[in-house]
Amino acid sequence: MARIEKVTITNMCMIQDGSKVLVQEKIDDDYSGITFPGGHVEVGESFTDAVVREVFEETGLKISSPKLCGIKDWPRDDGSRYMVLFYKTDKFEGELKSSEEGEVYWLELQEMVNLDLAEGMDKMLKVFLDENISEYFFYKENGVWQEVLK
Amino acid sequence: MARIEKVTITNMCMIQDGSKVLVQEKIDDDYSGITFPGGHVEVGESFTDAVVREVFEETGLKISSPKLCGIKDWPRDDGSRYMVLFYKTDKFEGELKSSEEGEVYWLELQEMVNLDLAEGMDKMLKVFLDENISEYFFYKENGVWQEVLK
Repeated sequence: MARIEKVTITNMCMIQDGSKVLVQEKIDDDYSGITFPGGHVEVGESFTDAVVREVFEETGLKISSPKLCGIKDWPRDDGSRYMVLFYKTDKFEGELKSSEEGEVYWLELQEMVNLDLAEGMDKMLKVFLDENISEYFFYKENGVWQEVLK
Repeated sequence: MARIEKVTITNMCMIQDGSKVLVQEKIDDDYSGITFPGGHVEVGESFTDAVVREVFEETGLKISSPKLCGIKDWPRDDGSRYMVLFYKTDKFEGELKSSEEGEVYWLELQEMVNLDLAEGMDKMLKVFLDENISEYFFYKENGVWQEVLK
């Protein structure tokens, strides 16, 4: 039996260099603050190819062996699902170069929590860092959004 | 910009107990052989809830902290994508009980390779076991299916 959902698929990648991570300061009107680079998966594109491509476009770095470590997702009012695949890697080469999406720079992971993070980024960090958490899920209950780490 | 794909989302879980894994002998006409338990994610359902539910339905075990470790996916001829989210866990409780989907039993992981595995299960095992592989992707090139581990 076919059970097909309408899904917008995106990704986000935590690139690690020792104790530092590569952050992006988003300047989008809809979503601003400090986050990790990433973007949309194209229809028919491999998920791994998509995160390698997006990281390259936004940072100038060519990552390899991105490791899937979690998902953020939520059902939208139109019945579709939005999902963000989380990856991490410490393998990369190339020269750092920011894009129009926002400035990218290295930051001590420990310092991130004190800064102006993008919405929900504190929770997303838990998915990236806690081996026992694989999902950051939102759902509406009686018209009010609830969020849960699973 | 909204880029929405039509996707069938399913899951599969490797439950470990020391050196053993819980396998399922599928008796479906479309897909038979030794595999891991799993099934369909319902529309709007959390991915983590879905794998916990499917494992319970097919094995009688209540797993906790399923850890996302990879994805198998491919674009279908109708333009939709099929995806299987791979999870693993060594945390479970309850009494083992098979379902109509197939008999479930514990098996030494090392013994699996010698048995009648379901189609592609040898490649799937690589995604479950190799930290550097996150995806088992299929695509059609000049009408012929290609498969790649990434």
